[in-house]
Amino acid sequence: MEERMREIEEQERRIKTRMAKIKHKLAILSGKGGVGKSTIAANLAIAFARKSYRVGILDADIHGPSIPKMLGLRGQELMASRIEGLGIFPVRGPFDIKVVSMDFLLQSDETPVIWRGPAKIGVIRQFLADVVWGDLDFLLVDLPPGTGDEPLSVMQLIPNIDGVLMVTAPSEVSQIVVKRAIGFTKELHVPLIGIIENMSGFVCPKCGAEFDILGTGGGRRISEELNVPFLGRIPIDQNVCEDSDKGTPFVIQHAESLTAKAFMEVVGKIEEYLRHLGERP
Amino acid sequence: MEERMREIEEQERRIKTRMAKIKHKLAILSGKGGVGKSTIAANLAIAFARKSYRVGILDADIHGPSIPKMLGLRGQELMASRIEGLGIFPVRGPFDIKVVSMDFLLQSDETPVIWRGPAKIGVIRQFLADVVWGDLDFLLVDLPPGTGDEPLSVMQLIPNIDGVLMVTAPSEVSQIVVKRAIGFTKELHVPLIGIIENMSGFVCPKCGAEFDILGTGGGRRISEELNVPFLGRIPIDQNVCEDSDKGTPFVIQHAESLTAKAFMEVVGKIEEYLRHLGERP
Repeated sequence: MEERMREIEEQERRIKTRMAKIKHKLAILSGKGGVGKSTIAANLAIAFARKSYRVGILDADIHGPSIPKMLGLRGQELMASRIEGLGIFPVRGPFDIKVVSMDFLLQSDETPVIWRGPAKIGVIRQFLADVVWGDLDFLLVDLPPGTGDEPLSVMQLIPNIDGVLMVTAPSEVSQIVVKRAIGFTKELHVPLIGIIENMSGFVCPKCGAEFDILGTGGGRRISEELNVPFLGRIPIDQNVCEDSDKGTPFVIQHAESLTAKAFMEVVGKIEEYLRHLGERP
Repeated sequence: MEERMREIEEQERRIKTRMAKIKHKLAILSGKGGVGKSTIAANLAIAFARKSYRVGILDADIHGPSIPKMLGLRGQELMASRIEGLGIFPVRGPFDIKVVSMDFLLQSDETPVIWRGPAKIGVIRQFLADVVWGDLDFLLVDLPPGTGDEPLSVMQLIPNIDGVLMVTAPSEVSQIVVKRAIGFTKELHVPLIGIIENMSGFVCPKCGAEFDILGTGGGRRISEELNVPFLGRIPIDQNVCEDSDKGTPFVIQHAESLTAKAFMEVVGKIEEYLRHLGERP
């Protein structure tokens, strides 16, 4: 028992050391699944990396990791260093993005991860403590939906997290869930950078008519109601899904699209937030 | 310790007694969030109830319960029986559907449920053991995304579960996640009734052009690859989201739409499955 306690303390020391080398840690959260959290994490990583920032992504969705697929990295493996005790090397993605995901540890597509909370926390701790993240400007943590074990552990384990990006779909049903997730950040005293409304409206590529397939305006409504910054709305674009399936991020493949431009505006706002953060005394 | 063990045994006895009064128990699962699992659960309940079946829904999504919103039941409360030990009464929804959800226990929209696994399992056990479900033809369990604590507990706690309905979005990214969820049902030896491909294609209401916004065909591909029944594809319809937001299920509000018809075909296939189940020796 005492030995186990020592191990945990030792692990937390390692997490602190590794995290100290990373300038900004951002967590991407959403109460509800399927709002495009991973798509946003993957494209955000690409957008930052293109601006010559050094970027890492921790895919903390243990049951349904999808970052590797979106970045065209499926089938790759995490390699342990030959030097004893140095740690595990992340997979290198496009623009040299460092990626760690449960997907790299699973044997086949059909292997389910039937793990209860403690096992999931265990692997997240290892991803933070034993991965050779090195010096980074950004670590983006793609969290699974909800406010359970994984988001809780990540928030508690990463020292000085810069803040949370809250992703929501525009529907009212999503809004209720996202409000709870905002309550979660408040309760844990983690700064909320702002809300991103994803999948907001669809413009018919043939006739130009616009449809609010999944509703619209929900993100802005919450931001006003709860007095939280609104980072922007990103319209639905068929190419986003196609590009994700191909493993080629849409911000590069379809840089000229309305959707990519909306996305880059969000990126600008995040940079602005971080600049102001730096100016604080 | 011994007393706690006795309590748990007693609780499991109560679960068995309550569940014995329910003819069919179906769990709605998807590896990935946001594929419309709750929408399908809510509309399935309505479809069965309209056919004069007695229906209950257990909303097992503890962090992001959305069934009450979709059925127009927000703000309602679970009431304990005045008769000591009888249990808690479910909220009555449209067509007298019995609904139990974490949402009924939360004080406000902003209350997050920051619970780790054991607490979540605890509340699900209570929902099964202490709710006066009564005699039902169907209990539909709307599970949260993933293959973690909640789905695992539900599968292990409900005796003789009839099977799982697996919901997927058509994209390839969703497919990988759903494959893992299918692996989960195999590992737990729970019958998989079939796959429902939701949000499959969008027909522009103005010009009639069809777009695979979120891809198409993914559900059928998995069903062929893994030799699992395919129950149907449900096209995207703006009204689905609007109706859910209003708390009026779309199978009733837009019964004549392509999407509602596709949905009713799925319902027919589930009934067929259950009939054959009854015929088994």
